[in-house]
Amino acid sequence: MKKLINSAESVVTDALRGLAAAHPRLRVDVENRIVFRAAGPRPGKVGLVSGGGSGHEPLHAGFVGYGMLDAACPGEIFTSPVPDQVVEASTAVDGGAGVLHVVKNYTGDVLNFRMAAELAAEEGVQVESVLVDDDVAVRDSLHTAGRRGTGATLFVEKIAGALAETGAPLAEVARVAREVGERSRSFGVALSACTVPAAGRPSFDLSEAEAELGVGIHGEPGRARAAMRGARELVAVAVDAICEDMPVSGDLLVMVNGMGATPLIELYVAFAEAAGQLEARGARVARSLVGNYVTSLDMQGFSVTVCRLSDELARLWDAPVETPALRWGR
Amino acid sequence: MKKLINSAESVVTDALRGLAAAHPRLRVDVENRIVFRAAGPRPGKVGLVSGGGSGHEPLHAGFVGYGMLDAACPGEIFTSPVPDQVVEASTAVDGGAGVLHVVKNYTGDVLNFRMAAELAAEEGVQVESVLVDDDVAVRDSLHTAGRRGTGATLFVEKIAGALAETGAPLAEVARVAREVGERSRSFGVALSACTVPAAGRPSFDLSEAEAELGVGIHGEPGRARAAMRGARELVAVAVDAICEDMPVSGDLLVMVNGMGATPLIELYVAFAEAAGQLEARGARVARSLVGNYVTSLDMQGFSVTVCRLSDELARLWDAPVETPALRWGR
Repeated sequence: MKKLINSAESVVTDALRGLAAAHPRLRVDVENRIVFRAAGPRPGKVGLVSGGGSGHEPLHAGFVGYGMLDAACPGEIFTSPVPDQVVEASTAVDGGAGVLHVVKNYTGDVLNFRMAAELAAEEGVQVESVLVDDDVAVRDSLHTAGRRGTGATLFVEKIAGALAETGAPLAEVARVAREVGERSRSFGVALSACTVPAAGRPSFDLSEAEAELGVGIHGEPGRARAAMRGARELVAVAVDAICEDMPVSGDLLVMVNGMGATPLIELYVAFAEAAGQLEARGARVARSLVGNYVTSLDMQGFSVTVCRLSDELARLWDAPVETPALRWGR
Repeated sequence: MKKLINSAESVVTDALRGLAAAHPRLRVDVENRIVFRAAGPRPGKVGLVSGGGSGHEPLHAGFVGYGMLDAACPGEIFTSPVPDQVVEASTAVDGGAGVLHVVKNYTGDVLNFRMAAELAAEEGVQVESVLVDDDVAVRDSLHTAGRRGTGATLFVEKIAGALAETGAPLAEVARVAREVGERSRSFGVALSACTVPAAGRPSFDLSEAEAELGVGIHGEPGRARAAMRGARELVAVAVDAICEDMPVSGDLLVMVNGMGATPLIELYVAFAEAAGQLEARGARVARSLVGNYVTSLDMQGFSVTVCRLSDELARLWDAPVETPALRWGR
């Protein structure tokens, strides 16, 4: 294992110190592991809080800022944040209009966010939760009952965050967040495993001749171990799986996401294929995102996430955003 | 070699198709391999043209857009663009105020941009060139007479691009571009080699126990092959080499750049160290950038680039930019 870290024990804390040094518009509570907007809560605005295991950067801390999250709670690598983090974040960002929790569907995250929501409610914070479960690859897998939450989390955070900035009430923000989730599907492919620093060795074995089709963002097994092939064929596996679960038509928001160690030139090769294949099915790629956004440490591979846009969702996607990892329009 | 590509022969063309599909504000001439702003030249604005071998994405095509480049000319992987590309780009973006070529200091790039400048001049385009040679690691190395051009290229393109948007004349834009170069230094460290698709195997051998100190962005040898160590110590090698060449003080722009396969969480760990070490020397990290910007295909590793800011350079760095890879403020 070769990593640019000081120690397996300090990697999350050290990265949070770097985040704080790089982004003066964030307030980073390194000790309690919460990343806030430096500006604090805005009275009357719904607060958005998300979180999950570290190792998926820029998700979630890189999405804290105007137009997206109010706070993020990173856990240890691939480990849920504890309820205390989420409670503290929720009470701190509540501007009186309540707080939306964006939760990826993993058993630990679901339990800890549920407990945090109850505790925050006892402290007078109105909480709604939205569960993201966009990964069509497998059902009832390692760490998860039902489908896993992956790339669509970014879409939910961006679009619900934009609506929250308009002063929309909690029920409305939660409704749109759920709608984004319902309209989104993902599928991932690994060309290599990832290595958790504390484990020190790859999470699974994959030969030079193989790819893992339907891999999860923690290196969880997918649908099949198959022969390695070209970008066109690997993307087709992802696009076919998505379209089988959710027929596509109309305007789409499409993300080709790198798993952390896939160079950008390769992601653009994959995006050309994804866009071509989706348009061949009669849909239109109206918005897009290409890059490393929902990663799995040093895993080589990619995922495709598709959201069927409505006019409202497209408008909210286009709205200004100003976070470390997504910035436009202001 | 495991890559998300269709073939080694088509990777540059396929990636350009993806770039075109993802970014409607770019006009991509896939056949001639030139990436333009879709809006075309603005009368009276100096045009900025850069280019170089592919494999360093998002450099340069990801920096085409408002406030930065007018056109980028990607060559084959790690291979200079041909003069014809640069001539065509230069004549197309000339809005009557002339064109600045931003050239990384590699022998092939220098020769081909020089020939292109002469040919463009024959077609009536006034051309100035700025040579970027910020890498302090080695002198007169593989592919390069003098120092290599690396991370500071991004700073030159951003800052000169911002000045060009104000309608400044060519001589002024060239002056600022050179000033950024003179005030900037870089140093890179590799934890792994990169693999050129057409070669099919790593560009050099590096054991699990070693790091290459002072590596170039094509995997060129650095100053020393040394024992692998922690982020703090590796960053210290880079910061010390930079500060030995250019004592730092005052406000700095600091980039911790990933070589392509280094996860963002590790880059933030490295940034925390770089910021701390530079501030311990009495300088202030006034602006920063953390991410994969000037890459070397699938190389694992990082580089540190430092620019000593003046008020003018800081203001131009902060000015709005709207490109695929850098966007803020509009």
